[in-house]
Amino acid sequence: MISISLPRLTSRINTLARFGGLPGGGVTRMCWSPPHEEARAWLLGEMRAAGLETWVDPAGNTFGATGIRALLPETPAIVTGSHIDTVPEGGILDGALGVLAGLECIQTITETRTRHARPLVVAAWSDEEGRYGSLFGSRAFCGMLEDARIDEMAAVDGVRLVDAMARAGFDAHRAPEARVPARAVDAYVELHIEQGARLEEAGIPIGIVETIVGVRRSRVVFKGQADHAGTTPMDRRRDAFLASADYALHVREHVVARGSKASVTNFGVVHVHPGASNIVPGRAELVHEMRDPDVAVLERLAAETASLAREVAGRHQVGVDIQPMSATIPAPCSPRIQAVIEKVCATLGLATRRLYSAAGHDAQNLARITDSGMIFIPSLGGRSHRVDEMSDWPAIERGANALLHTLLALAVD
Amino acid sequence: MISISLPRLTSRINTLARFGGLPGGGVTRMCWSPPHEEARAWLLGEMRAAGLETWVDPAGNTFGATGIRALLPETPAIVTGSHIDTVPEGGILDGALGVLAGLECIQTITETRTRHARPLVVAAWSDEEGRYGSLFGSRAFCGMLEDARIDEMAAVDGVRLVDAMARAGFDAHRAPEARVPARAVDAYVELHIEQGARLEEAGIPIGIVETIVGVRRSRVVFKGQADHAGTTPMDRRRDAFLASADYALHVREHVVARGSKASVTNFGVVHVHPGASNIVPGRAELVHEMRDPDVAVLERLAAETASLAREVAGRHQVGVDIQPMSATIPAPCSPRIQAVIEKVCATLGLATRRLYSAAGHDAQNLARITDSGMIFIPSLGGRSHRVDEMSDWPAIERGANALLHTLLALAVD
Repeated sequence: MISISLPRLTSRINTLARFGGLPGGGVTRMCWSPPHEEARAWLLGEMRAAGLETWVDPAGNTFGATGIRALLPETPAIVTGSHIDTVPEGGILDGALGVLAGLECIQTITETRTRHARPLVVAAWSDEEGRYGSLFGSRAFCGMLEDARIDEMAAVDGVRLVDAMARAGFDAHRAPEARVPARAVDAYVELHIEQGARLEEAGIPIGIVETIVGVRRSRVVFKGQADHAGTTPMDRRRDAFLASADYALHVREHVVARGSKASVTNFGVVHVHPGASNIVPGRAELVHEMRDPDVAVLERLAAETASLAREVAGRHQVGVDIQPMSATIPAPCSPRIQAVIEKVCATLGLATRRLYSAAGHDAQNLARITDSGMIFIPSLGGRSHRVDEMSDWPAIERGANALLHTLLALAVD
Repeated sequence: MISISLPRLTSRINTLARFGGLPGGGVTRMCWSPPHEEARAWLLGEMRAAGLETWVDPAGNTFGATGIRALLPETPAIVTGSHIDTVPEGGILDGALGVLAGLECIQTITETRTRHARPLVVAAWSDEEGRYGSLFGSRAFCGMLEDARIDEMAAVDGVRLVDAMARAGFDAHRAPEARVPARAVDAYVELHIEQGARLEEAGIPIGIVETIVGVRRSRVVFKGQADHAGTTPMDRRRDAFLASADYALHVREHVVARGSKASVTNFGVVHVHPGASNIVPGRAELVHEMRDPDVAVLERLAAETASLAREVAGRHQVGVDIQPMSATIPAPCSPRIQAVIEKVCATLGLATRRLYSAAGHDAQNLARITDSGMIFIPSLGGRSHRVDEMSDWPAIERGANALLHTLLALAVD
């Protein structure tokens, strides 16, 4: 039975970590930024050196393939991959693992001349982390990108997608052309760290994803009155920040008490205006995120927290405006792919557990157009989206080999 | 009895409002910024056109005088003034009124050749609003500026004082040289809008300030853990933003319940890191401000809120660090000047009320080196530090005439 080369995979993971690498460890490599574009060039070089055909589509998705030069209905392919962008101060594995393990699997298959009926493709999807738009590249690839919204897409700091893509040499308005023809993808499998502690705590090496959570993001804007912070009596203030603080604390409580066991919520972006120590905040903007694997729970929580926002705003005598930013619906993974992963792991002697993914992934977009699945390996301490995010090398080797044989099983049939 | 020219004063207030004027009304004219420096040049021109001697000291304080070319112990002067910088999106009166009314008074006195024994000076103090350092110009003038701290002084957005002053043509390290010689100032009186609603509600045209509140500012930094906002279970998060939100709400409650009737508090600056919607905030910084006219109350509240911060941090399993930024002690105004204002207003037929100032003013620094006092006029609706801050023109005329005769009474003796 063939297996991947851990030294080669380790070396590539460590090399990719240098693009946007931080002095104290970890990586900041936002999509379209110079470190990301340098990483893309390096990745294309590695793919070519491994004997793969390469191309980059109009959404910036980067592909390496064996047996084909493009994804066409005549040659349905087995696709794997993930992404090479990171959150600010992220870790070295996250999307990098799925891309480099995918490359390693295809290189192992071609080098060993292992028989496979279908073409194999590894993809690095653009802006998975959603600096400009959640799961941007795979959305474009799966035909879910609305051209009409491209001009308004912007990062939290106001940088517009069209400008960021232009600086990287892309025309954002052409991104929807990345849409893949129907039936050109036969199956999609992605390897990823769990980003939680369930596998580690259970001592299970492989997780088989059943469902990927839905994520709802809204901008919640409280509008009070900017007043002098010395002379305005406390009972006359209409403080937008205190209203937003009250809302955030109540939402946390509500989601813990009234959500499902899997429900989570976060306020990761907070802006307070005008932002002077001696002025009562007249405006506070929060980005409110909620996740759940069950769409009904997510919709109920969205309605409940919206009425909570109005209630809190009323109590603080401020206005509130809720602007939906994005909403992905929970995506079930393909039972066929779950079964293949399970069978392969049994053969490899690897224990598995079915679980849901608490993070969004490109696999959820691929689930709209093909059979899509995910393989998880443990995260050390459940840490993720942090500079000290890690798995361990034997776990990575086990996960990459599970991916290798899953791809082969899918490609042979 | 002589009186000021309201049309001339009105015209100057409206002209000054154009420097940094905002399309929807109000002004953004931060100290050392281009609009501020253009306003300074215009002000010097107006002073010269009014026949005053002018100079600018190394701290950027701008002076217009009659009878002297510099402040010297041999010629103790009566000084009035305020400032021409504004908060972001501030109003057209605030400091502008005190400077332009002071100029109007001196111009009226010189034009009418009214006898006065002492020289008269109008000053526009630098950075009263404290973009780089609270009451910067008057602090330097009164010998309270520590050279050692100049290099670290910076705005909330990180712009350093030395760079901002250099762009305006000043050497920040020379600012302490602005210190005025002892006994060169015989008295200081400043005209200002109340910035609160007490005078308006009582129907009293003139407020005589007894005390200026002390202001304490601290940076309160909560340090949690930046984690993935999807995969980290709610009960394992160490969310620095939620801790800061909890703290802010408790401080407000505590200050209202346990402070004096005059105690106020504000959180006007809030920064949350790393600032991505899908990352649990690992760090949250608040600028916490508290004011009270009684130093004992202020110190008690500072101690109590510091222990509240530790308690809240403990409950949220995050760290907290409190960095004092500035602390002014409440400043009593001179009884001599209060008596002069009261007597002048009685002669003018203007009702007065003694009150404390809930805002900091340059007069509190001047109180360290001379007899210092303040005249307040009503603010419409108590509004201040807002684009719609206003008094009304008859009230401005009454206040300027009260200032005129107060200056004369002080200068004649």
